[in-house]
Amino acid sequence: MKQMIIRPGGGLKALTLVDSPEAPAPGPDEVRIRLKASSLNYHDYLVASLPNAAADNRIPMSDGAGVIDAIGEQVEGFAVGDAVVSLFFPDWQEGPDGPSVFTRVPGDGIDGYARETITVPANWVTHAPRGWSHEEAATITTAGLTAWRALVVNGALKAGDTVAVLGTGGVSIYALQIARAMGARVFATSSSDAKLERLRALGADQVINYRDVPQWGSRIREMTDGRGVDHVVEVGGPGTLAQSIEAARDNGHIALIGVLSGFSGDVPTATLMRRQQRLQGLIVGSRRHQQDFVAALETTGIRPVIDQTFPLAELRSAFEWQASGRHFGKIAISIP
Amino acid sequence: MKQMIIRPGGGLKALTLVDSPEAPAPGPDEVRIRLKASSLNYHDYLVASLPNAAADNRIPMSDGAGVIDAIGEQVEGFAVGDAVVSLFFPDWQEGPDGPSVFTRVPGDGIDGYARETITVPANWVTHAPRGWSHEEAATITTAGLTAWRALVVNGALKAGDTVAVLGTGGVSIYALQIARAMGARVFATSSSDAKLERLRALGADQVINYRDVPQWGSRIREMTDGRGVDHVVEVGGPGTLAQSIEAARDNGHIALIGVLSGFSGDVPTATLMRRQQRLQGLIVGSRRHQQDFVAALETTGIRPVIDQTFPLAELRSAFEWQASGRHFGKIAISIP
Amino acid sequence: MKQMIIRPGGGLKALTLVDSPEAPAPGPDEVRIRLKASSLNYHDYLVASLPNAAADNRIPMSDGAGVIDAIGEQVEGFAVGDAVVSLFFPDWQEGPDGPSVFTRVPGDGIDGYARETITVPANWVTHAPRGWSHEEAATITTAGLTAWRALVVNGALKAGDTVAVLGTGGVSIYALQIARAMGARVFATSSSDAKLERLRALGADQVINYRDVPQWGSRIREMTDGRGVDHVVEVGGPGTLAQSIEAARDNGHIALIGVLSGFSGDVPTATLMRRQQRLQGLIVGSRRHQQDFVAALETTGIRPVIDQTFPLAELRSAFEWQASGRHFGKIAISIP
Amino acid sequence: MKQMIIRPGGGLKALTLVDSPEAPAPGPDEVRIRLKASSLNYHDYLVASLPNAAADNRIPMSDGAGVIDAIGEQVEGFAVGDAVVSLFFPDWQEGPDGPSVFTRVPGDGIDGYARETITVPANWVTHAPRGWSHEEAATITTAGLTAWRALVVNGALKAGDTVAVLGTGGVSIYALQIARAMGARVFATSSSDAKLERLRALGADQVINYRDVPQWGSRIREMTDGRGVDHVVEVGGPGTLAQSIEAARDNGHIALIGVLSGFSGDVPTATLMRRQQRLQGLIVGSRRHQQDFVAALETTGIRPVIDQTFPLAELRSAFEWQASGRHFGKIAISIP
Repeated sequence: MKQMIIRPGGGLKALTLVDSPEAPAPGPDEVRIRLKASSLNYHDYLVASLPNAAADNRIPMSDGAGVIDAIGEQVEGFAVGDAVVSLFFPDWQEGPDGPSVFTRVPGDGIDGYARETITVPANWVTHAPRGWSHEEAATITTAGLTAWRALVVNGALKAGDTVAVLGTGGVSIYALQIARAMGARVFATSSSDAKLERLRALGADQVINYRDVPQWGSRIREMTDGRGVDHVVEVGGPGTLAQSIEAARDNGHIALIGVLSGFSGDVPTATLMRRQQRLQGLIVGSRRHQQDFVAALETTGIRPVIDQTFPLAELRSAFEWQASGRHFGKIAISIP
Repeated sequence: MKQMIIRPGGGLKALTLVDSPEAPAPGPDEVRIRLKASSLNYHDYLVASLPNAAADNRIPMSDGAGVIDAIGEQVEGFAVGDAVVSLFFPDWQEGPDGPSVFTRVPGDGIDGYARETITVPANWVTHAPRGWSHEEAATITTAGLTAWRALVVNGALKAGDTVAVLGTGGVSIYALQIARAMGARVFATSSSDAKLERLRALGADQVINYRDVPQWGSRIREMTDGRGVDHVVEVGGPGTLAQSIEAARDNGHIALIGVLSGFSGDVPTATLMRRQQRLQGLIVGSRRHQQDFVAALETTGIRPVIDQTFPLAELRSAFEWQASGRHFGKIAISIP
Repeated sequence: MKQMIIRPGGGLKALTLVDSPEAPAPGPDEVRIRLKASSLNYHDYLVASLPNAAADNRIPMSDGAGVIDAIGEQVEGFAVGDAVVSLFFPDWQEGPDGPSVFTRVPGDGIDGYARETITVPANWVTHAPRGWSHEEAATITTAGLTAWRALVVNGALKAGDTVAVLGTGGVSIYALQIARAMGARVFATSSSDAKLERLRALGADQVINYRDVPQWGSRIREMTDGRGVDHVVEVGGPGTLAQSIEAARDNGHIALIGVLSGFSGDVPTATLMRRQQRLQGLIVGSRRHQQDFVAALETTGIRPVIDQTFPLAELRSAFEWQASGRHFGKIAISIP
Repeated sequence: MKQMIIRPGGGLKALTLVDSPEAPAPGPDEVRIRLKASSLNYHDYLVASLPNAAADNRIPMSDGAGVIDAIGEQVEGFAVGDAVVSLFFPDWQEGPDGPSVFTRVPGDGIDGYARETITVPANWVTHAPRGWSHEEAATITTAGLTAWRALVVNGALKAGDTVAVLGTGGVSIYALQIARAMGARVFATSSSDAKLERLRALGADQVINYRDVPQWGSRIREMTDGRGVDHVVEVGGPGTLAQSIEAARDNGHIALIGVLSGFSGDVPTATLMRRQQRLQGLIVGSRRHQQDFVAALETTGIRPVIDQTFPLAELRSAFEWQASGRHFGKIAISIP
C-alpha cells in the first residue's frame, strides 16, 4: 500500500509517499480499515511543517475515515463494510478528564492515517454519520469534535444562547453550524468580506470584518445591547484573547482552543476576574463525545464545509494551501 | 373592566363574568397591563372545576399576556407598549430552587389573569417573543416553560438526544418542538391515529398509538435498538410511569410533571434503581428560566400549536372543551 | 486453594467450601491477588439465599480485598505486595453511565471473591487505603462506594448540607461517616435505641426510633424547621419512600438504593413532583469513583464499622447473622 | 453616631471619623443594625488608599457585622437581637450570574459599614453563625465567601481533593480551612517560614517557601506524583498565574481571584489549553451562597483567623498594617 511519511528532519519538503505492506489481519478486538480520506488541522500542520516535530518517518494525520474490511474476534458493534472515523485520543474512551500529552495521538506521538490501510483496536474509531462521504467524515475527528466539545460538552449550549466564532477555519465553521442547529445566535468574524458573506449564508446572524473593526469584541458587546455573548470559541490564542474577553458576557464562557497567535501573551486577567468569566482550555474530546457528536450530526443534518480536496500524494500541496490562509472550512485528503 | 371569577363553592358553573374597577395606576416598580389573552392548563382546570378548590371569588388563570399601558417609577427594562407575559411563580425570580406551594400562584393562591387589566410588579412578567400574538404568548407561562425546564434546564438537552413525549397536551407538544429545534429525536404517543399524524407533521420521528400498543415503553426501547430514550417528559403520573421507566435508557432522565392519572400509584422502584434513572419532579420554572426560554423561542422560530381560541366570556366552554380531551395543543382565551 | 461455591439449586445450605487449583499466573495486563477478606451485602445475600439465583457452582461475593502476589506484563500502577480491593462493576471504568445488568458482576453474573486467590485484569481493582485491614478494605467495593456515589457523586454534598440515613446497614453507616467528614449534619433512624446511641456516637446529630415515630419523615421535617433535608439515602425502597419524600426538602435529593422492602410499591408521585424532588436510582459506581473514594478515605480518616468477622468457611453463618438484622455496620469475612 | 469617611481626594490620610445622625427607623422590609465590627480586604484597601478611588466622603468597608436593633414591617426571618453580617453584592440574591460592576457594593459604589448604625433592606444581610464574635462574623462577607465560592460553589470540592493556596491572606486561610473541613489535602505557600509553620498548624499537609522555591508550581506537581492539584485558589493574579497553571492538574480548576500582582500580564495560554484547565474568574458570591456558607461554618466549627483588631477610629492604622504584609489572616475592626 501507499503511505505518506515525514522523512527525518521534518518540514513540508520531508513529506514523502512510500510503499509499505498492507495492514495485518486484525487480532482480537481489532478491525482493519481501508482508509479513504483524511483532513487537515493546524496540529497536523505543525507536526508536518516544523523541523523535527515528529519522530523519523512518522506517518502524519490524526483524521482518518474509511471502511472496515476485516474484523477480529470479540469485536462488538462493528461489521465489515461499516464506515468509520478515527479518534484524536484513542486512549480517552470516556470520562471528563482528557490527556495533556500527545504521545498516543495518531499522526503525532504514533503513526497516523495518511495511508491506505490500518489495523487498530475497534475502540479507536466510531461509526461515521450515515450517508456522509469519507472526506466529510474525516473532518469529525479533530475539528468537528473540538467545536462540539467546546459548545456542547463544556458550554452546555442551549437554544437562545449567543456564540462568537473567530475566522473561517474548520473549528469555527463547525461551531457556527452546531450553534445554529441547536437554536443559538452566532456572531462571526473574518478579515475578508467575501468570507463574511459565506458565513452569513451558513447562518451567522452578525458578521464583523476584524480588519475594519479591530475592537471587534467591543462591537459584539454593543450588538448584544452591552451584554456580551454566552460563549466565545477562541481559536486564536493570546493575540485575540483580550477581544474575546471583551466580547463575552459577565459569567460567560471562553473556550480556549487555539495557538494560532502564539503560545503565551499578555492577558487582561483582572477583566476576566471582574467579569467572572470562565476560560476553559480544551483539546478535542473522548470517544464517548464523538459518539454523541455523530448522533447529533445525523439528527441535525449538519454537513461540514469542505474547501478543497487533495489526493494523498499531494499532501504537501494541501498543507501549502492551508498555510496560505485562503481556505474556508476544511481541507480534505482523498485516499485512492 | 370585565373579569371572570369563581363564585363561592366552585366548579365550572361557578365561573362568572363580572364588572370590576380598572386596575390602579402603577406604583414604584410596577406596571399596568392591558391583558389580551390567557391559556388553559390542567392546573387551571383543577382550580376551576373542583369544588372549593379556590378562595371565594378567585379570579382564575395563571397565564396572562398583554401590553403594558402604564409604567411606575424606577421600572427598568420595560416601556409602555411592550408585549409581556406573566409568571407562574412570581416570587421565583431565579436560582435552582422552586417553591412547592401555590399560595402565590396567580389563579390559585392569588387572583389570576382572567381579566382586562392588572397592575403588578414589573418583575412578575417577562417580555413576550417579538412578533407573537398574545394568545401564543400566553401559552409560555405554564405549558411552554414546563417543557423548557424539563428538557433544557433539568435535562441539559443536546442535539442527538432522544426524547419521548406522551399525548398531545400543551406541555408535550412544546416539548416535541423544543426537542426538534435543538436537534433531538422525538418519540410521541397518542390514542388517536389522526393526532399521531399531526405529531409526525410537527417533527416526531416515531409515533405510537398507545391503545394499540399498551406496552409503548417497550416499543420505544425496541425502536432505539434496546437502549431506551435519554428523556421522557412524563405528564401522565403514576398511571404511565411504569412505561416511562421502560422507555428510558439506563441512567436516563424522566421529568415527572403530571398528575393526569392520579396523585399516587404503584411504581416499579427496583427497575428505576437498577437502571440508575433519575425521576425529577418539577413545576414550571423561574423568571430567569422564562427569559431564557423567550430568547430561545425567538431564535428557533418555534410557534405554539393553538387548538382553538375562546373569548373570555366563554371560559367555561373552553374548560369543557379541555375536559373532552379532544384538543391538540393549547386552548387559548382572548380578552377583548 | 479453598473456595466457596453455591451448589446447584442454591440457598444458604448450598454454600460449600471446596478445593480448587490456585489462580493462574497473570497474563499481560493482569494481576494475581492473594485474597484476604470479603464482606457481606444485601445483594450477596440475595444471590446466596434465593433458590437458583446464581449459576451452578457460582463463587459468591462481590467484595474482595487482598495483596497482589504476581503481576503480568504491561501492568502500570501496581506492584507485588500492593493491597487492593475489587470492583463491583469491573467493566465500568469511568464516565457517568453505569450498567443495569449484573452479567459481569463478580459473585453474581461471574465468579466472585470467596476464594483464596484470583487472577484478574489489573483494572478490575484499585488500591486499598493505606493502613487499612483487608476486612476494612473489602467493605469499600459495594457498601462504601454506594454511599460515596449517592452523596458525593450524585448529590454533590457540601459542608452545611443535611442528610438523612435509614437504619444501621453498611451503606447507611458509611453515608453517615462521609457526611460527617465533609461537614454535613446527619439525621439517622433505627428501630433500636441501643443502635441509635451508637449512631449518635458516630456523629449523628439527631436520631429517631422509627418504631416510636412511624412518621419519621415528618419528624425530620420538623427538626429542620419545616425545611426538610437536602439528601435522603433511601436504602429501604417502596416501603419507606413515602417517608423519605416527606423528609426531603423542596428540590431535595433522594438516592434510591434499596430493595429491602420490595421491588415496587405505592409512591406519592404528586408530592415528589410538587416538591420538585429528584429521585435518583443508583447502583454502586465506577472504578474512577472508587479511586476518588479511596483518596477521600485516606484524607478524612474514616474507618468502616465492622460488626463481626467470620472465617470464609463459615460464610453461611455470616449470612444467617446478616439475615437476623441484629448487626450494626458491616459483616466481614476473613480468608485465611 | 460616629462614622468613618474618605474625604475628597482620597488616600489613607483622607480617612476621617465624623459625627452623623443615627440611622433612621426601618421602613417596610428593612432592618436597622447596630454595627459592631468590620474587616479589611484588599478591595477596601484599594478604595481607601488610591487617590479619588471613591466618591467624596464615601463611607468605606464592605464587611459589616452587628445586631438588629429595629425591624420594619413585613420583614420575615429576622428578629431584634439577631446577629447579622452584610453582603458584598446586596443585589445578587441568588442564581449563578454575579455582577461585574461595583456600583452597588457597600464601601465602594455606595456607602459601607464603617459606622455605628445602618438601616438596610433585610435581604442585604444574612444571619451570622451562632456563637461567633462580630469581628469573626465580619470576615465572612468578602474573604470567607470568596473562598467558599471558589472551592465549593465553583469547584465542587469533595473529600480527597487536593488544593493549593497562596500566601496567608484572609481568602487563602479561609480556603485552607474549608478544604480541610471537607476532607481535602492542602498545599500552602508563603515567603515566611514562621507563617508556614502556622499554616501547617492549621492543617496544611505540605508547605512551600516560595522565596526558596520560585518554581513552587513544579514543586507541588512533584509532591502530587506529577499529577498536580485539583484546585488552585489563585489570589495573586498574573504574577503567579504561570506557577498556578504548573501546579494544577490536567483538567484542573484555577480560581482566579486576585489582582495583588497586577491587572494584566503574560500568561502561558498554550499550557492552560493543553492541560485542558479551567481558569474561573470570580468575585465573592450571592446571598444564597452566603447562607449556605454560614450553615457550613456552623456545622464544621471553622473559626476565622484574626490577626489583630483595631478600633474604628484607627482604621487608617489598620490599613497601614495590612499594607505591611506582615499580618496572618484577617485584620478586624471593632465598632464601639
